[in-house]
Amino acid sequence: MSKAVPEPVTKLIEAFARLPGVGPKTASRLTYFLLRSPDDLSLGLSEALRDLKSLTRLCSVCYNITTDDPCPICSDGQRDQRLIAVVEEPLDVLALERTSAYNGVYHVLHGAVNPVGGVGPDDLKIRELVARVDQGGVQEVIIATNPSYEGEATAMYIRNELTPKGVKLTRLARGLPVGGDIEYADSVTLMRALMGRSEL
Amino acid sequence: MSKAVPEPVTKLIEAFARLPGVGPKTASRLTYFLLRSPDDLSLGLSEALRDLKSLTRLCSVCYNITTDDPCPICSDGQRDQRLIAVVEEPLDVLALERTSAYNGVYHVLHGAVNPVGGVGPDDLKIRELVARVDQGGVQEVIIATNPSYEGEATAMYIRNELTPKGVKLTRLARGLPVGGDIEYADSVTLMRALMGRSEL
Repeated sequence: MSKAVPEPVTKLIEAFARLPGVGPKTASRLTYFLLRSPDDLSLGLSEALRDLKSLTRLCSVCYNITTDDPCPICSDGQRDQRLIAVVEEPLDVLALERTSAYNGVYHVLHGAVNPVGGVGPDDLKIRELVARVDQGGVQEVIIATNPSYEGEATAMYIRNELTPKGVKLTRLARGLPVGGDIEYADSVTLMRALMGRSEL
Repeated sequence: MSKAVPEPVTKLIEAFARLPGVGPKTASRLTYFLLRSPDDLSLGLSEALRDLKSLTRLCSVCYNITTDDPCPICSDGQRDQRLIAVVEEPLDVLALERTSAYNGVYHVLHGAVNPVGGVGPDDLKIRELVARVDQGGVQEVIIATNPSYEGEATAMYIRNELTPKGVKLTRLARGLPVGGDIEYADSVTLMRALMGRSEL
């Protein structure tokens, strides 16, 4: 950049531009916004970024992100520890928690099988899930991977690993999204909704 | 948020959400992206944010953001120090520099007069501009405030302040944006383009 822009400014623009969905224009808009704002805004963000990794770890039971090990969900006596929902990412835990309809525990895989992207089953926390089931006390494993090609492949792999263990395996229902429109539903979703129809 | 989200994660989501144009969804997407990424991404951004204010200051001549005082533009012997372009924000300096068509220096006001928002002429670097002209050696002041209501009000105020000093005052031309379409031009722009028409 030209010498109208001092180095600390350029550096922050470049750091912002490395975030997904942030282009060079947005990065420079954010930077100049912070320059105009009180110091505590940029310093607060700076400290939160510094602490993000240093103060968090993965729960040794469910591999969700946590400050305490085991995490508050795994150490909660009110929750059904015999019921495990297997999800791809920590954000999926959040989505399920928001429903207030689930009282079991979780297992975060940290990704999905993706041969093109070079992600194999060993790169995910699948072995750890199998070990958890082997320890006993698990009644049901709900596979809540994404309804995508990678999520389905991951679900199939986990099914093959867990079927010999004799644990009950279920997965989230496929169907029409609530508030959706049959007219605009894609045919695969509609087919799944038809196959999974229930009595009225 | 629920206990599925540890505090350092919540804190970063909240810090991101204080940025303009970043809602809670984007903030949490950015946070979980950084959690999945190598540490140097979040730490690099953290350091750049920490240094943004501590390593920069305003140039004591033109009030642009700089690491050295006076800034590289004000201390550049190759530039015409008798020609001052008055802009609202540091980003406007950048925009003018990008044209490569300007070889004078700048004066950054850090805002525009905005009675509704409580910004008066004394909140801007207008007194400093008048003092700069008073020091002598200035031939022309190009008022390059935004073509908005606030920018025009600021331009008028500066004109009233500088006219008695006998310095040449100009402002950026109004007209059709290059690549624009007459059909879609607003009528004020079109009127200005008509008034400012030049011989072919």
